[in-house]
Amino acid sequence: MNDITHKVIFQPHNRTVEVEDGANLIRAAMEAGVHINASCGGEGVCGKCRVIIEQGEVDGGAEKLSQEDKDRGYTLACMSKVKSDLVVRVPVESNVDASVLNIATSPRHTAKIKEFKLESMKEQGLLIQPVVKRYLELPQPTAQDNLADVTRLLNFLKIRHDEHRLLIELDVIRKIPDILREGDFKVTATIVRPVRKDGKNLITLIEPGDTTDRNFAVAMDIGTTTIYGEVLDLNSGEVLSNYGDFNGQISYGEDVISRIIFAEKEGGLETLQKKVVETINHVLEKIVKKAGIRKDEVVTITLAGNSTMTQLLLAINPRYIRRAPYVPASILYPPFKASEIGIDLGSHTTALLYPGVSSYVGGDIVAGVMGSGLYKSDKLTLFMDIGTNAEIVIGNKDWMACTACSAGPAFEGGGITFGMRASKGAIEDFSIDPITFEPMIMTKGNVRPKGICGSGLINIVAMLFENGVIDNRGKFNRELKTERIREKDGIWEYVLAWQPTTQIDRDITLSEPDIDNLIRAKGAMYSGAMTLLEEVGLHINDIEEIILAGGFGSYVDLEKAMIIGLLPEIDPHKVIYLGNGSLLGAKMSSYTNLFRRNVGEVVKMMTNFELAETPSYMDHYVSALFIPHTELNYFPRLKARMEARMEAKRQIS
Amino acid sequence: MNDITHKVIFQPHNRTVEVEDGANLIRAAMEAGVHINASCGGEGVCGKCRVIIEQGEVDGGAEKLSQEDKDRGYTLACMSKVKSDLVVRVPVESNVDASVLNIATSPRHTAKIKEFKLESMKEQGLLIQPVVKRYLELPQPTAQDNLADVTRLLNFLKIRHDEHRLLIELDVIRKIPDILREGDFKVTATIVRPVRKDGKNLITLIEPGDTTDRNFAVAMDIGTTTIYGEVLDLNSGEVLSNYGDFNGQISYGEDVISRIIFAEKEGGLETLQKKVVETINHVLEKIVKKAGIRKDEVVTITLAGNSTMTQLLLAINPRYIRRAPYVPASILYPPFKASEIGIDLGSHTTALLYPGVSSYVGGDIVAGVMGSGLYKSDKLTLFMDIGTNAEIVIGNKDWMACTACSAGPAFEGGGITFGMRASKGAIEDFSIDPITFEPMIMTKGNVRPKGICGSGLINIVAMLFENGVIDNRGKFNRELKTERIREKDGIWEYVLAWQPTTQIDRDITLSEPDIDNLIRAKGAMYSGAMTLLEEVGLHINDIEEIILAGGFGSYVDLEKAMIIGLLPEIDPHKVIYLGNGSLLGAKMSSYTNLFRRNVGEVVKMMTNFELAETPSYMDHYVSALFIPHTELNYFPRLKARMEARMEAKRQIS
Repeated sequence: MNDITHKVIFQPHNRTVEVEDGANLIRAAMEAGVHINASCGGEGVCGKCRVIIEQGEVDGGAEKLSQEDKDRGYTLACMSKVKSDLVVRVPVESNVDASVLNIATSPRHTAKIKEFKLESMKEQGLLIQPVVKRYLELPQPTAQDNLADVTRLLNFLKIRHDEHRLLIELDVIRKIPDILREGDFKVTATIVRPVRKDGKNLITLIEPGDTTDRNFAVAMDIGTTTIYGEVLDLNSGEVLSNYGDFNGQISYGEDVISRIIFAEKEGGLETLQKKVVETINHVLEKIVKKAGIRKDEVVTITLAGNSTMTQLLLAINPRYIRRAPYVPASILYPPFKASEIGIDLGSHTTALLYPGVSSYVGGDIVAGVMGSGLYKSDKLTLFMDIGTNAEIVIGNKDWMACTACSAGPAFEGGGITFGMRASKGAIEDFSIDPITFEPMIMTKGNVRPKGICGSGLINIVAMLFENGVIDNRGKFNRELKTERIREKDGIWEYVLAWQPTTQIDRDITLSEPDIDNLIRAKGAMYSGAMTLLEEVGLHINDIEEIILAGGFGSYVDLEKAMIIGLLPEIDPHKVIYLGNGSLLGAKMSSYTNLFRRNVGEVVKMMTNFELAETPSYMDHYVSALFIPHTELNYFPRLKARMEARMEAKRQIS
Repeated sequence: MNDITHKVIFQPHNRTVEVEDGANLIRAAMEAGVHINASCGGEGVCGKCRVIIEQGEVDGGAEKLSQEDKDRGYTLACMSKVKSDLVVRVPVESNVDASVLNIATSPRHTAKIKEFKLESMKEQGLLIQPVVKRYLELPQPTAQDNLADVTRLLNFLKIRHDEHRLLIELDVIRKIPDILREGDFKVTATIVRPVRKDGKNLITLIEPGDTTDRNFAVAMDIGTTTIYGEVLDLNSGEVLSNYGDFNGQISYGEDVISRIIFAEKEGGLETLQKKVVETINHVLEKIVKKAGIRKDEVVTITLAGNSTMTQLLLAINPRYIRRAPYVPASILYPPFKASEIGIDLGSHTTALLYPGVSSYVGGDIVAGVMGSGLYKSDKLTLFMDIGTNAEIVIGNKDWMACTACSAGPAFEGGGITFGMRASKGAIEDFSIDPITFEPMIMTKGNVRPKGICGSGLINIVAMLFENGVIDNRGKFNRELKTERIREKDGIWEYVLAWQPTTQIDRDITLSEPDIDNLIRAKGAMYSGAMTLLEEVGLHINDIEEIILAGGFGSYVDLEKAMIIGLLPEIDPHKVIYLGNGSLLGAKMSSYTNLFRRNVGEVVKMMTNFELAETPSYMDHYVSALFIPHTELNYFPRLKARMEARMEAKRQIS
């Protein structure tokens, strides 16, 4: 990305937005809260998003227009890239009535990305390398000094490098006599630091010569759906490469429950263990190659995954995770050799797996809590990892409460008539003209729409609600005069895109049952957070900061998520987007043992609540089955906007 | 053995000896220092050992005699068992002249057997069990208490059994969910105590139900020639079974050097590792069966062997042990899983290998030092393990010096014309008539002789020397009038048994080159001890106690060993016979972690000397190539006896 930005002024709204060079003009309008009719997702098919460039230049957007339109300065916003400061006029057809300009629409807000500052950790002395390499030039043995090879090595690690409490394993001892002599008694020792201060320093490798500049780690997120890996240079702190791939277990079930069911079949556990390791090895192959290192130069691998992924990876029968009272095998796992479970790394490579809290608050969440620094925060923080299984952590440096709820698959496009994963052709951005109820849609990849992804669904429902197209129970206003709202086979729906502008053979619609699914999903999450807070004597409005983890969080428009009541209403600047928290935690633990030390305490601090066992949960859930909530006072800004909008509408009519 | 003893008085010598019920009468005579001509080893063939039972009863001994002899009260001493107090008259034919009665011959002395007192250790609080079993009845998980299985287990080990600093390995965690439920949450945990106090308690096994009464260990001595194993009950302290077998590596070389040479060949190390493990597994099979336990009930195995055996067992290339400057791979080895090196025990069975000091003072010697308690002794002690490779330790609780010397194979019957291992038919006891020079010989198993074993060789040479048959350079007195001394093909020899009384087709003889081999062997050992002592500023006469370890030591007649100058001359009651010191140390370490803790310090205390690098060794060696030594003053009692004998002879002649 470049750092050049341009100012775009939309007229007649007189709204200004600053965007990066090359930004899509229709996205700029979205961000400015300016509605432009557009229903083909940005492929230039519908031709509805014509705007006039009054000042400045854009790239593209004119190809599909008539010469007449071109001459008049028209361009298709969805195909135009901003190349300078602009003044853009939105024609009246998209606009209907200037009075709507006074209706405040919420600008788009995505969260700040949490950045990892290795240098500042170094400065604070928090960087305790979990694995170090030490180069030694040993004196050759003589008749007067014929100490055992291992004794010689240990003695000089003490003398030259002040290394103490050293332990050396059998398979390393086995190679030492020949390696010492091969290296002419000049060797490099790889030393794995103990997680606890009173532990031993484990020598895992002796190499001939000086290899101290080759000290690499791998961090990996073992997700139910995807596995992401990174190669880290432990000397420089740099991320050398990364790669993600679908978890090979997917063919055996989309979610953890179906995986557990498969694991209970004859040979199922072995199959799933093998499959996930195959994916891990494939990802390893890629990242190691991209990083330009050898696999045997990886000194440690840190993995984080949910409790089911963890148990499947370690070939631990997960059947009791699925059955009440939902007991995982373990919380903490000891370090082990990566090769022991089939990971294609050297026999010296130690593996560390993130501990979990319970069957449904696993190592991925703990990694997120660690990586986000929540466990050190003064602020009362709400941490959410939104997905089919959504995990919630509330707390600060003094205490943490956590829980998991089954949100259902709505956030991942499941259970939605035209739902799909966040891939090419998925509607992700949406705006609606408050008068004509014509939509403005943008798809991933700017192609004709195929369906709706989770973040798109939130945006659509939020805009439909804020513009009065649906009520707080998610039901369409049957009175509105637009052909986009219709009843079909007894089900009410809104047409997002007419068939000719889609990639499929039907109109793409959003139905009341779809909206209902979303309401239940967001209600589960919100009420989970409410319940947790109530259990600790707090209220949702006490939340000072929100951390969003997971792939879903990266696309969600915060204001929209607050409109539908998925997130409590707070200043969007107090929302932090963590990205892949699981991978971030794994990475941090690769860089510093401080994390490995703290995590044991953090896990103990995290009190798990089983929502099914918390009587007030059902009440909270029922109250949350509204948009945004049965209690609108929890959402004061939304309430104010709604009142202003009502007022504006009254004035217009 | 029974505890009944009888008093036997030999006439006309008027010597009394107390022997066990059923003892062989000729052995009783040996112990009393009474000579009876006998050359068939005790099979009753030569018929020379006729004695008259004047009072009391014997079993057997009369079958091969004429009725006349029987009527006169004769019996063959070699075939008679003492069944009551006896008065035995030795006929004049074996006696020649009563004046020899005044010549003092040394009574037979074997060393006291070191006994292991578990009870007294218990009383002293020295019994720190290295492995304990803890039975737990856990509460079943409920919705309100759905802790992870491992957490539940660890919590209750803390609460119910005050067990802390617990660590649990991956392969144990893997089995826990199912075992807890199989055992209805009533389980037994096997906990391996840390060797160091600040270490972790490792949980190696969880079994359903209460198995606390089944807690067994195996101790094993990995000898170059033989492998001995014992099953120990860690609860009662009892040795339940034992068994020994030849090390399967023997086919690849008799001694450590030839094994190392074989190990350097392609695939040699793997072959030798496999072979020794095969023998270990065979011994295990036997002892486990004899003990009536299952292999998976063995919680720990402790092994001790010399440095070469140790490295071969662990598949560590031993080539640098054989090459100057003789560097072993390591001194201390970490605990490991027995199954990891192919030992056929459960995956939960931990193995501990005794640490060594140097390439030629290995774990077997350290085990002996530990098992004998030398490292806690106030007395200046000489510890010797006599064999082809002889190891010497000198010291007390404050310091220890050690070395190894190659004694050559003489002590094991090698390099001796009629030398053989200590098996059936080997001449082990010997006496000579000081006038007629006729021998009295006893063989192992009381059968006709086949050859001479190591301890027999020492006895023969000692008696030949003390009776003036050989001089202090080991040369026969050519003046003596007996057909037993003869020159054949230029080599002088003594006929121990004429062909008809042997099991072979020749006379069994001892030649001057044979004696020379023995002198060099004993000279190497004695001078080794001298050199060590000199290095620490002491003299051999400062020795207060001797500990003999190894199979050889159990048969050697101490007085005879002192006559030839193999051992320094001290009160035989100050000599302790340790038996298999390696096995004893392994056993002690199986019973108590105190040993495992101390051994690290003991190994550091033991200063190794390489004799080849100690200039004075060659001088000491040359001085020791005499019987008993060039300096007779080091052997004051022998000197006094020799002077008395000279005097007696002068009076007779």
